[in-house]
Amino acid sequence: MSKVPEGSPEVVLVRNKQVLFKDYVNGYPKESDMVVTSDFTIPLELSNNEDGLVLLKNLYLSCDPYMRGRMNKTSKGSYTSSFTPGLPISGYGVAKVLASTHLELSKGDLISGITNWEEYSLIKNPESLIKINDTDVPLSYYTGILGMAGLTAFAGFYEICLPKKGDTVFVSAASGAVGQLVGQFAKLSGCYVVGSAGSKEKVDLLKNNFGFDMAFNYKEEQDLNIALKRYFPDGIDIYFENVGGKMLDAVLCNMRVHGRIAVCGMISQYNLNQPEGINNLMLLILKRIRMEGFLVTDYHHLYPKFFEMILPLIREGKIKYVEDIVEGLENAPAALVGLFSGKNVGKQVVVVAHE
Amino acid sequence: MSKVPEGSPEVVLVRNKQVLFKDYVNGYPKESDMVVTSDFTIPLELSNNEDGLVLLKNLYLSCDPYMRGRMNKTSKGSYTSSFTPGLPISGYGVAKVLASTHLELSKGDLISGITNWEEYSLIKNPESLIKINDTDVPLSYYTGILGMAGLTAFAGFYEICLPKKGDTVFVSAASGAVGQLVGQFAKLSGCYVVGSAGSKEKVDLLKNNFGFDMAFNYKEEQDLNIALKRYFPDGIDIYFENVGGKMLDAVLCNMRVHGRIAVCGMISQYNLNQPEGINNLMLLILKRIRMEGFLVTDYHHLYPKFFEMILPLIREGKIKYVEDIVEGLENAPAALVGLFSGKNVGKQVVVVAHE
Repeated sequence: MSKVPEGSPEVVLVRNKQVLFKDYVNGYPKESDMVVTSDFTIPLELSNNEDGLVLLKNLYLSCDPYMRGRMNKTSKGSYTSSFTPGLPISGYGVAKVLASTHLELSKGDLISGITNWEEYSLIKNPESLIKINDTDVPLSYYTGILGMAGLTAFAGFYEICLPKKGDTVFVSAASGAVGQLVGQFAKLSGCYVVGSAGSKEKVDLLKNNFGFDMAFNYKEEQDLNIALKRYFPDGIDIYFENVGGKMLDAVLCNMRVHGRIAVCGMISQYNLNQPEGINNLMLLILKRIRMEGFLVTDYHHLYPKFFEMILPLIREGKIKYVEDIVEGLENAPAALVGLFSGKNVGKQVVVVAHE
Repeated sequence: MSKVPEGSPEVVLVRNKQVLFKDYVNGYPKESDMVVTSDFTIPLELSNNEDGLVLLKNLYLSCDPYMRGRMNKTSKGSYTSSFTPGLPISGYGVAKVLASTHLELSKGDLISGITNWEEYSLIKNPESLIKINDTDVPLSYYTGILGMAGLTAFAGFYEICLPKKGDTVFVSAASGAVGQLVGQFAKLSGCYVVGSAGSKEKVDLLKNNFGFDMAFNYKEEQDLNIALKRYFPDGIDIYFENVGGKMLDAVLCNMRVHGRIAVCGMISQYNLNQPEGINNLMLLILKRIRMEGFLVTDYHHLYPKFFEMILPLIREGKIKYVEDIVEGLENAPAALVGLFSGKNVGKQVVVVAHE
């Protein structure tokens, strides 16, 4: 947190609107677990005495389900450290470089990477920041389809699920930042793909916009096992797991022999103090199922290969990406909290500034 | 079930002691779910009118945990069909060919494969029968180390767990037919290996006979999570899963990043109407764990490679195999039932006849 430096009257200080994390969370996160403040100021230049600093003007911030884990006191449930009470939320974003003493970034560059939920950020560990070269696509895409969510879908589907033409694919949370891409990758691979989501609007999007063969609203199904049998009378070869809980148990009953489950997330479980028990794991044996958890951080080396595939598809309109864009940092807490009740339709993005 | 053929007085009929399956089982199987009878007779020769028949004198029968699934009315919980009430139990065994109209087997051959729990069996589908060529090792070994259990340990450990020198390996039900071999394979691969079992006698066997680095009695542990932390302060790379339930949940908490779980069996769950829920599957993501179920039937093509490895090790005394041998068909029901309370020490074998 920058304070007004004493005895340097020539430095221009600006108020820096921020979203601060208040305290560790139990159960569902609420907007009141964060606070929006403009109490602090930040100098909009760097002294040249310290190398490796980058001053950012934040443009787009990404709301991601994994951030729930960072709200726990212990890092249990997360693969990154917990947020620090009193400091801003941090996460993936797109920003413009205002000043830099880091060799690889210069003033005016656009970057994507880990930044803070505030108007301006002084980044002391700029290792995660990647310079954006392709600017003929929407900049906000670098929080989603061209960022973590895109690479997650790419690595999870192609590297873990090992799709073959004709495979039957089920995607849960299918209209989300990752799911909508997995479904489209499955169609590109010649698979039959069905998605589940939590509203009629999302189900329509899956069928009409993303080209899923079928889709259903899991909230309207009395028995998920029966629902899956309806859409997969011959069973599921590939399950891209985003939700966990009862859906996973139902999927296990409907998997085919030698099926593959890529475990990307379990959003239905993140806000429970004790996760639901999964009862049907014996079916892993009978059906010789491979169930594999993965994190996108293990696949950063695939970014070039992924960009080579995805950029032409975006430019040619052969792949769609729906974003749920909220304007203004002051609306960021509601946007993040909304992920866990499924309020967002598509990738949840917060606009801090348009440029 | 053979009955006395009418009008063929020249055929010699003998009484055939059998273990019949009485009715489908709920919960733990009991000896009284089976009945030993000598009510039926069988002719000890074949007419040459029908091809592909093999008449066996059964020598050794294998008691295996998977047989519990065959006692259910539906095949749920089993990958083979249910037993038929009123007919003999069937399973893996070693037998001598008394007569054969099958091209690949002749009188006097010793075989291993699927037979029935009776003194003499007329096998009409002899596809599973394999001629035994190496008879300088105990014949009973073909029900275990040189049969399904041996290949299960070999395929599960080498093909699914992909061991590397220095890996930490945990084996549950470690003194059982499969577990004792997995532990020895792990030592041959330069791994650190710890086993769990259900009695002091078994734990001593693991440490003193099979060369496990450490072993513990899970029944004496108040908290399996704490027990595992004691033996694996830096976590588990490979878990060879034979038991399921609470042990699996505790193991998940102690797995290392990029760990592998070969799901071979879940014997603690086979007798429950509703399997216990597994709560810690979110750790699959955080630790990027691969959890893979397998069945030995997918690996029969590895038998030659397996025999090439294991036979010299047996002959040179470099691998040990402990059997729990029960004499007499009349004691077979108790032996099978005993598997599910852990009565057996080592591979459970029933001797029908010594030759």
